[in-house]
Amino acid sequence: MHKIRMGMVGGGKGAFIGAVHRMAAALDGEIELVCGAFSQDPSRSVESGRILGLDDNRIYGNYQQMFAREARLPKDEAMEFVVIVTPNHLHFPIACAALEAGFHVLCDKPATSKLSDAETLQDLIGQTGKLYGLTYSYSGYPMVEEARQRIASGQFGKIRRIMVQYAQGWLSKAVEKSGNKQAIWRLDPDQAGQSCCMGDIGTHAFHLAEYVSAMRVSEICADIGPSVADRVLDDDGTVLLRFTNGARGSLMASQICVGEENALKLQIYGEEGSLNWSQQEPNTLILKWHDRPHEIIRSGGVGLSRPAQAMCRLPAGHPEGYLEAFANIYRAFADGIRQFPERGELNFPGIDDGVRGMKFVETVVTSSSSDQKWFSLNSIKGEYK
Amino acid sequence: MHKIRMGMVGGGKGAFIGAVHRMAAALDGEIELVCGAFSQDPSRSVESGRILGLDDNRIYGNYQQMFAREARLPKDEAMEFVVIVTPNHLHFPIACAALEAGFHVLCDKPATSKLSDAETLQDLIGQTGKLYGLTYSYSGYPMVEEARQRIASGQFGKIRRIMVQYAQGWLSKAVEKSGNKQAIWRLDPDQAGQSCCMGDIGTHAFHLAEYVSAMRVSEICADIGPSVADRVLDDDGTVLLRFTNGARGSLMASQICVGEENALKLQIYGEEGSLNWSQQEPNTLILKWHDRPHEIIRSGGVGLSRPAQAMCRLPAGHPEGYLEAFANIYRAFADGIRQFPERGELNFPGIDDGVRGMKFVETVVTSSSSDQKWFSLNSIKGEYK
Amino acid sequence: MHKIRMGMVGGGKGAFIGAVHRMAAALDGEIELVCGAFSQDPSRSVESGRILGLDDNRIYGNYQQMFAREARLPKDEAMEFVVIVTPNHLHFPIACAALEAGFHVLCDKPATSKLSDAETLQDLIGQTGKLYGLTYSYSGYPMVEEARQRIASGQFGKIRRIMVQYAQGWLSKAVEKSGNKQAIWRLDPDQAGQSCCMGDIGTHAFHLAEYVSAMRVSEICADIGPSVADRVLDDDGTVLLRFTNGARGSLMASQICVGEENALKLQIYGEEGSLNWSQQEPNTLILKWHDRPHEIIRSGGVGLSRPAQAMCRLPAGHPEGYLEAFANIYRAFADGIRQFPERGELNFPGIDDGVRGMKFVETVVTSSSSDQKWFSLNSIKGEYK
Amino acid sequence: MHKIRMGMVGGGKGAFIGAVHRMAAALDGEIELVCGAFSQDPSRSVESGRILGLDDNRIYGNYQQMFAREARLPKDEAMEFVVIVTPNHLHFPIACAALEAGFHVLCDKPATSKLSDAETLQDLIGQTGKLYGLTYSYSGYPMVEEARQRIASGQFGKIRRIMVQYAQGWLSKAVEKSGNKQAIWRLDPDQAGQSCCMGDIGTHAFHLAEYVSAMRVSEICADIGPSVADRVLDDDGTVLLRFTNGARGSLMASQICVGEENALKLQIYGEEGSLNWSQQEPNTLILKWHDRPHEIIRSGGVGLSRPAQAMCRLPAGHPEGYLEAFANIYRAFADGIRQFPERGELNFPGIDDGVRGMKFVETVVTSSSSDQKWFSLNSIKGEYK
Repeated sequence: MHKIRMGMVGGGKGAFIGAVHRMAAALDGEIELVCGAFSQDPSRSVESGRILGLDDNRIYGNYQQMFAREARLPKDEAMEFVVIVTPNHLHFPIACAALEAGFHVLCDKPATSKLSDAETLQDLIGQTGKLYGLTYSYSGYPMVEEARQRIASGQFGKIRRIMVQYAQGWLSKAVEKSGNKQAIWRLDPDQAGQSCCMGDIGTHAFHLAEYVSAMRVSEICADIGPSVADRVLDDDGTVLLRFTNGARGSLMASQICVGEENALKLQIYGEEGSLNWSQQEPNTLILKWHDRPHEIIRSGGVGLSRPAQAMCRLPAGHPEGYLEAFANIYRAFADGIRQFPERGELNFPGIDDGVRGMKFVETVVTSSSSDQKWFSLNSIKGEYK
Repeated sequence: MHKIRMGMVGGGKGAFIGAVHRMAAALDGEIELVCGAFSQDPSRSVESGRILGLDDNRIYGNYQQMFAREARLPKDEAMEFVVIVTPNHLHFPIACAALEAGFHVLCDKPATSKLSDAETLQDLIGQTGKLYGLTYSYSGYPMVEEARQRIASGQFGKIRRIMVQYAQGWLSKAVEKSGNKQAIWRLDPDQAGQSCCMGDIGTHAFHLAEYVSAMRVSEICADIGPSVADRVLDDDGTVLLRFTNGARGSLMASQICVGEENALKLQIYGEEGSLNWSQQEPNTLILKWHDRPHEIIRSGGVGLSRPAQAMCRLPAGHPEGYLEAFANIYRAFADGIRQFPERGELNFPGIDDGVRGMKFVETVVTSSSSDQKWFSLNSIKGEYK
Repeated sequence: MHKIRMGMVGGGKGAFIGAVHRMAAALDGEIELVCGAFSQDPSRSVESGRILGLDDNRIYGNYQQMFAREARLPKDEAMEFVVIVTPNHLHFPIACAALEAGFHVLCDKPATSKLSDAETLQDLIGQTGKLYGLTYSYSGYPMVEEARQRIASGQFGKIRRIMVQYAQGWLSKAVEKSGNKQAIWRLDPDQAGQSCCMGDIGTHAFHLAEYVSAMRVSEICADIGPSVADRVLDDDGTVLLRFTNGARGSLMASQICVGEENALKLQIYGEEGSLNWSQQEPNTLILKWHDRPHEIIRSGGVGLSRPAQAMCRLPAGHPEGYLEAFANIYRAFADGIRQFPERGELNFPGIDDGVRGMKFVETVVTSSSSDQKWFSLNSIKGEYK
Repeated sequence: MHKIRMGMVGGGKGAFIGAVHRMAAALDGEIELVCGAFSQDPSRSVESGRILGLDDNRIYGNYQQMFAREARLPKDEAMEFVVIVTPNHLHFPIACAALEAGFHVLCDKPATSKLSDAETLQDLIGQTGKLYGLTYSYSGYPMVEEARQRIASGQFGKIRRIMVQYAQGWLSKAVEKSGNKQAIWRLDPDQAGQSCCMGDIGTHAFHLAEYVSAMRVSEICADIGPSVADRVLDDDGTVLLRFTNGARGSLMASQICVGEENALKLQIYGEEGSLNWSQQEPNTLILKWHDRPHEIIRSGGVGLSRPAQAMCRLPAGHPEGYLEAFANIYRAFADGIRQFPERGELNFPGIDDGVRGMKFVETVVTSSSSDQKWFSLNSIKGEYK
């Protein structure tokens, strides 16, 4: 079985998320990093590529160069897809360039910096017919998949309430004033767009809620804002949710919850049963029932649906974590490439999720500063598959 | 030490909450049940009183009779306070009658069925000078007190976010159609007033949030409603909260969360630290910090404030529960009577809490059906001590 | 319904365990404290009795006096049973005197200071025909009863492994040298007998294992001893267990486990399923199965056996704790008195449990200092009902 | 940075543990699989190698061939170390052959099938001067390292009690009779040696206890055996432990604990504090103290020692699991090769751990069938570094 050949834009020496992507891509031995433009500084790109063991002739000074040259290499040598792990505002132009050069694209979240760009990208993907994946990493957890399968099976009955919380504490102090680079760009409207917290983690929470439930939020009412002096963008907020089927819910996202690490939690209540999942203990899914004892479903354990089981690499009791979830998205994307141009079930998030997320963020920002209570989240674009 | 003499209105044979009150009152051996009007049906009242071991001449057919006769008994024999555990709509008239007959009053929550009555009662209490307590039972937990003390100490810095959830599942099916009496009256506007879920458990959550934080909610935005066919009153909802100090938060109360028992949870985030308490594991308080490991504070354990320690009856590791919390309110109320007419610190909820709760429920109901986003919760009345 | 009349020996002002017994007895309002000999110091006894609201003529200077006078009171006035909460070495003579004076006896654990006394007491109980209860308090938890019922039902199949741990930390420092009275007498061979830790808490663990499983330990192999300088008696140890049915297991008891509170845990593994209970979270029983998801059984919740349900006072989610468990033993004992001399099912621990516990401690002490590996725990006396 | 070149013996198509090793080796992108003898069946070896993307000329029919040919390849092309993932009884001859051919060796646990072989191997390693690593995988967890660092720092004072439990349930039924290959060989004395459970998982528990505490077990007393009909080897047992410093403890290992997954737990109690770690929630380390609240230490979080921090790949709240722990051993081994022949701190388990483990298993088996209570575990060989 040949390894799928990956190129990377961004992710140079010291960049955190680039390393995460490389570990996720490497884990299953099915993907090989063959080239990269790791930095806008060519010498830094070379240095980074060498550390990664690449030949100098596959290390590029910029993405334009990389796409041009790789497109001319023999088909069994050239990269097959590019992963984009640059700052957010570059996601859109790089993705467009890659698609137009004939490459599949896997992109770190978010797809673009604004909704209109996401919609443009959506069109371009349709036109080129290439694969496009978005690393909403939490959807790669087996227990998230199990939750999704169980809801789809109808065993909980009609869903009536969905709560999702995403609490972090790393922005509880003004770290943007003391040199924290992650904080600086995320809190800068020029680089981050109109939202910090909702854009960064609120979208993950929103995606998780809709992805697992297969339901759509129809209306929202938001209260977000900055909590630390001198900030312009939100670092905290809550959103009331109404779903198309009449269910109520809420979404909380905050980066000022002191002491919280990465506390993403999902609770879904149906007529007959409910589920509870927490990202920090990802291998456990708790089910509660109307008329019988609570159940604990475990990654790798008994009673899993086939799709969730297929996402487990280890027997129950051998914890799998964030990198394994991330790697599941890579594996699904590599599967998609292997079968391309056939398209079976593509089990990874894509541009529709990206458009939907942008719609959510823009509506939340609009809502929060308005006296109007409810704002619609319906859109013609951005329908889920 | 003489035992404080208690009379009871309501709580006849088979009434759940009456039994809870009696156990809470009995636990510490400082209170003695001396008389009661246990039912509006005199023969049922007698039967109930006999089961409880009362002499027939202290079992009454109605509360009017009881107040009249007990008021004429020798001071060292007559009841000193009455506890009201009738259906909600009777709380107000009985409390007024008791105060006017010269008795202290302890009342099951809510104080009244509507805000204006609560305000009237507030005035009457002031005029009579008698003690009035309201059994917001969750404030009796030692770890709730510990949370309150720590916030008061300022160790968390300014509070920025408060989340409180109260999830139950017992109304997830239409049990009001199959004879569940608790459900029938709570879902009947004539008996329950304008709200089921928010009035029943939302007020507990609201009280807990304000009580522990010593902060006031200034504005709310609510989305509540019924989830089960043919219901008129809410069984589920979420409320966005804004506090006078600028903090944001949310309150969720639901009785259709299938499989949830009595899941009341409180999370409070300040600038320097945060706390997390869950009623179903009441002896643990989790603290999280900006710059050091999480801490687990335990009932009866090391590091407790003096007031919290005083509310623990047992050494750490010997679980105390709901009845012990409830008994702490009884003990505080009995202490109040012992020192009366002196008034030291009265460490139990009272009419101000009751007025505040009624204000909350009425505003939530108004908000939920309005297109206006925010409603003020400020009021001249109902200020906390 | 008349209240069962209780007398108390021991438990004067400031004595911890006396207060626990009184709270447990009071909780359900079915038992009334009518007299007591609370201290060997008569003036202290009077002072204690008055605080408890007793008439002076029912406060006695010693137990002999109390038994003699109460025996002469009218039958509907005299105490019906005595609870013994003195230091351990007095349990035996007081119990004998009470039985001989015609009273039922409820005694704090242990029954006696040595095995031979326990056997003598066993005989005397048989001769007098009176009720005798021993407050092995942990058997009063509803989830312990649920565990016992489920094992009895056979749903776990043959039991193969039983592990019980009881970890405390309060003797991890030499507190006996700094005035801790509980530590002083427990570590003094003259007052505590031949064992501190195994006698104090190891017996609880042993009782729990045999009580829940309805199995008998046939052989043990122990390693116990003191861990802190200058101690003579054990503060820590482990015992290998073999059961008559061939099952293996272990019992750990330690009072030097720094930071542990009262961590009594039980794990039982059968052929088809297993159970896990922890005293510090007493309202939860976890079941694990061969072929289906783990289940969480909850106090007051769905799926409980009738006997366990009957031991719950509150709906699920309203935590019950140590005092409620203790009160369940009192309630069962009061039921026994009510039906006396009829004897239905007596659902409280008795002298057989006491004899068995003494046999365990003596054998553990013998084993620990021997080079012989296994010691038998079989005995003709001490058979369980 | 060049990638360290790895060859693999065993781990052909469908072999579970081979895949685990490959994922662990691949994760950090620092190691490259360059050759393999994946099966004793040459055609199966070729098939496996091709799936893994190897060139045919680096796929070998047996290890002898592989070692011979790789030894003749240019130094910058030949494999640098071999990982052995064959059935256990082949570990010894293959490791010897590899060392003698000049290769470093990383071997799946156990080092050999019997103690004497392990000691022979220990000598050979000394003579060849090559690196030898043993994948005691649980020592690769950051929180295990944190536990070790904290004990080494002395903050818990003298250690007095160590408890380690390793409970699995997968052998609770006679799966060896229904074709489970893992069960068949592990329960066959010819293939597994003298022990099943103690050899397979008891050794992990033993290693963890000694590794984290840096203490040595001096004496043991064991009770092990088969629990399921027709088994010859142990599937369950408990071992009393005495440590050289006088501490007591116990080790439990069982494969018949129905419903348990891979429940490896470690509790260590010192004079001043204690720690608690559970493999199934590996990112949390709980510390308990004499005089202050419990602390929760978290992977990637605040308060970690530098060595533990260095083993975390992700920020707190992004769970890392079994594969990441395993990969830490690979990374440490690759570091060792990079600096070879210099030897800085080698932070991976080696042959001394292997010898010690074999000594433990042999002594446990001897003890269990003896009437003698204690057996010494001291040995001149097998001293830890």
